[in-house]
Amino acid sequence: MSSEKAKPTKPRKLSTVQHWDIETDVAIVGFGAAGACAAIEAADAGAQVTIFEVASASGGATALSSAEIYMGGGTRVQKACGLQDDKEEMFKFLMMCGGRQADEAKVHAYVDGSVDHFNWLVAHGMPYKDSLYNQRAIMALTDDCLLYTGNEKAWPFKDHAKPCPRGHNLQVEGDNGGPLFTKIITEQVVQRGVRVEYEARALTLIVDDNGAVHGLVVRMHQKEHTVRARKGVVLCAGGFVMNRDMLKKYAPDISTIDTPIGSPGDMGSGILMGMGVGAAAINMGEYFVTLPFYPPATTTFGIFVNAFGQRFINEDCYHGRIGWYALQQPGERIYLIIPAEDFERPTYLNADIAGTGETVEELEAELGLPAGMLVHTVNYYNEHAARGEDPVFHKSAEWLKPLEGPLAALDCTLGRGAFWPCFTLGGLDTRPSGEVLTAEGDAIPGLYAAGRTACGIPRTGAGYGSGMSVGDASFFGRMAGKAVAARQA
Amino acid sequence: MSSEKAKPTKPRKLSTVQHWDIETDVAIVGFGAAGACAAIEAADAGAQVTIFEVASASGGATALSSAEIYMGGGTRVQKACGLQDDKEEMFKFLMMCGGRQADEAKVHAYVDGSVDHFNWLVAHGMPYKDSLYNQRAIMALTDDCLLYTGNEKAWPFKDHAKPCPRGHNLQVEGDNGGPLFTKIITEQVVQRGVRVEYEARALTLIVDDNGAVHGLVVRMHQKEHTVRARKGVVLCAGGFVMNRDMLKKYAPDISTIDTPIGSPGDMGSGILMGMGVGAAAINMGEYFVTLPFYPPATTTFGIFVNAFGQRFINEDCYHGRIGWYALQQPGERIYLIIPAEDFERPTYLNADIAGTGETVEELEAELGLPAGMLVHTVNYYNEHAARGEDPVFHKSAEWLKPLEGPLAALDCTLGRGAFWPCFTLGGLDTRPSGEVLTAEGDAIPGLYAAGRTACGIPRTGAGYGSGMSVGDASFFGRMAGKAVAARQA
Repeated sequence: MSSEKAKPTKPRKLSTVQHWDIETDVAIVGFGAAGACAAIEAADAGAQVTIFEVASASGGATALSSAEIYMGGGTRVQKACGLQDDKEEMFKFLMMCGGRQADEAKVHAYVDGSVDHFNWLVAHGMPYKDSLYNQRAIMALTDDCLLYTGNEKAWPFKDHAKPCPRGHNLQVEGDNGGPLFTKIITEQVVQRGVRVEYEARALTLIVDDNGAVHGLVVRMHQKEHTVRARKGVVLCAGGFVMNRDMLKKYAPDISTIDTPIGSPGDMGSGILMGMGVGAAAINMGEYFVTLPFYPPATTTFGIFVNAFGQRFINEDCYHGRIGWYALQQPGERIYLIIPAEDFERPTYLNADIAGTGETVEELEAELGLPAGMLVHTVNYYNEHAARGEDPVFHKSAEWLKPLEGPLAALDCTLGRGAFWPCFTLGGLDTRPSGEVLTAEGDAIPGLYAAGRTACGIPRTGAGYGSGMSVGDASFFGRMAGKAVAARQA
Repeated sequence: MSSEKAKPTKPRKLSTVQHWDIETDVAIVGFGAAGACAAIEAADAGAQVTIFEVASASGGATALSSAEIYMGGGTRVQKACGLQDDKEEMFKFLMMCGGRQADEAKVHAYVDGSVDHFNWLVAHGMPYKDSLYNQRAIMALTDDCLLYTGNEKAWPFKDHAKPCPRGHNLQVEGDNGGPLFTKIITEQVVQRGVRVEYEARALTLIVDDNGAVHGLVVRMHQKEHTVRARKGVVLCAGGFVMNRDMLKKYAPDISTIDTPIGSPGDMGSGILMGMGVGAAAINMGEYFVTLPFYPPATTTFGIFVNAFGQRFINEDCYHGRIGWYALQQPGERIYLIIPAEDFERPTYLNADIAGTGETVEELEAELGLPAGMLVHTVNYYNEHAARGEDPVFHKSAEWLKPLEGPLAALDCTLGRGAFWPCFTLGGLDTRPSGEVLTAEGDAIPGLYAAGRTACGIPRTGAGYGSGMSVGDASFFGRMAGKAVAARQA
């Protein structure tokens, strides 16, 4: 059963197109990081480029983000900060982040091209300060650059790949990376004479009888326009977290969460257009979901427990990994237990206090947990934390200390007020070049995708880290731009 | 990226077909329960029917099963045993079993038609004794009929739907239901003059330019045969648990398990043929997986723990639900702790003894679990079990007693010898009539599917119960047979 908004978009047949309203070499759908980077590379390769953006301005979900970019293997900033990063370690780490579904070819390309990507961003005006932001944070609110943005220092990742900070934050104060990235990249696009049509809604692709893509139909200025794209169409239209019908059908785990993050354009339109011409959509059930319980970093001294009063994770790992595991817990209750002395409301979590207690017993009773379970969990944790040990979940010693004195529990249960941002990690199956593939593994001539319209580096919320989305979008946007410009149609 | 054996099967174009080697009204691929029931209904509706079966005999995965069938709402046997079952309760239960992805239309059809399905089976020669097999078992090894075959009596299901036994076991001693079902249903098919071709491998579908299915290509007698199916093709070719490439691509969770259960034909060929003509395959990542730790039922007095020494489930639920939750546990160790006084090797589990101990402390040390975790788990369990309570996981009082004296732990960890049978629960998207749907939700003219080639009633291993596969296959096989016979092509 397929509801209307989850249906692949029926393409227009080339033979029915009477004339072209617009002709271009490369048509790009979406002007976020992926679309912008694709446009720049395609234009630099000599192609005539037109971008169609449904919103009134550029930026997409990138503009709403902090625009951290995950890069490593020895960037200028890493070196200036005296950090030695290895490609091999970054590769191992990203493969582990991707889990069972990691795309080795893409991770290879991404890691191999990472220093070059950093240099390209700098050459195109992105300011990065040669400094470290060595705090446990969701984003740097200073103009410092380098930060740990994922599970690098957390078990089990740290046992498999040498940790190094790879999140690159733009040199700007406050949470203003997204707007700055958007401003700079938009200027670069405009400088190249790329035609940009805003408030232009891509309706469908135009295909010939062999399945090759020749252009698209766009609604703008209150009418439909046929667009010929001599070299190809690049779909950079975002993910589908704003499309309830698609979530219900493809990512039911997050279909009931009412705090999607993304741009209003994340309706899956690029994915559905691709599917309409036979593209395979893969990894569609996977997602990023989080409980942004830090900052302040001190909440990391707390412990998460489920409805059974059991711990289930090392609390020093990335907030998204904790959100992912929290969502998998049976029992439908998630609490963060924090000692009063460390208690400070998390900046973003918005969780209510579910209970407090002078003792664990009191707190347990107030939360209605099975009597004795939380008591054991806390006692056990405390006994080992006092020795700097966490034999069960392997939280690092720096975040271990006994939970003593009065305790408070934040109610992180889904649906009870806490902020559970989420977005989708499934999309069109593509090669590293951005070529869109059918389920048979054949490239669809003339069709490319990047950003969250494609299925990129991030494959599961259990391994996601900040900077992997804008990193993936900007890097593979560039690859798609190069590939489409080089195409001899 | 798509490996060869996971690729949709490219169809043959009708325009390239020079002549038909075989002509029939209805062509059925696969002679398991679904194919047989489809054939009977289609033949009874007056259609000429041909079955193509890749093996040398009928039966498919059904022949290897115990052929329990999940039926209720007041069957003759239920009534004779003095049990009052309600359609509404059966509906609530099956919807809960399907989880977030339950197909309400199919569950409705299945429940509404359940008593009629029982009567149809009896009318077609299936013997059911009016008796109850009131034991906790994976299957009845006597000739008794009715048994609880899922999570009916276990928390949380019992709180939402009134439990009633609905598994119907054929009147035959031993694990011989599958062969008996196969013998009877095969005779019924043969009696109707249905043409059956064994050792006939369906290669691909034949479609016209509008996507309608007109027949298929079959390899038999060392050559390819074109088969015209005037009314349609019914794909009943099983699931894909024997196809490693498909598992890796579509159901990675079970791709490393080396004990798939099914027939050698469960290679996903029906699903891939359907996908090749534009059918949507849904729910492909879901699966049944189990730890068959009973019989003997006394193992239910034991507790399952994960690598952290934590319990994670009520051990009185269906073995498949336990297997499913066990597979989701982080930490990669699963033990079943049983007191020596109840210890008896599970009939099917094949698990090694990972450790024993006069005390819990000893056992915990021998298993290498975090010191004190198992001790707490057992002490907590014992304290409450002594009062007939399980405040954490809600195991029923009848299976609660303190774990005392020497204890043994069976190693149920995946990959360490224990038997983890699994099979797939994804397949072609179909209507209750068996019509195969595209991702757009349109029926593909002339194409039907049933059994594990389709995505049926069972949607997740967390809710699966015995009898739901043969039940689904036989019931929706019949629906497909009726629908294809009624088609005016």
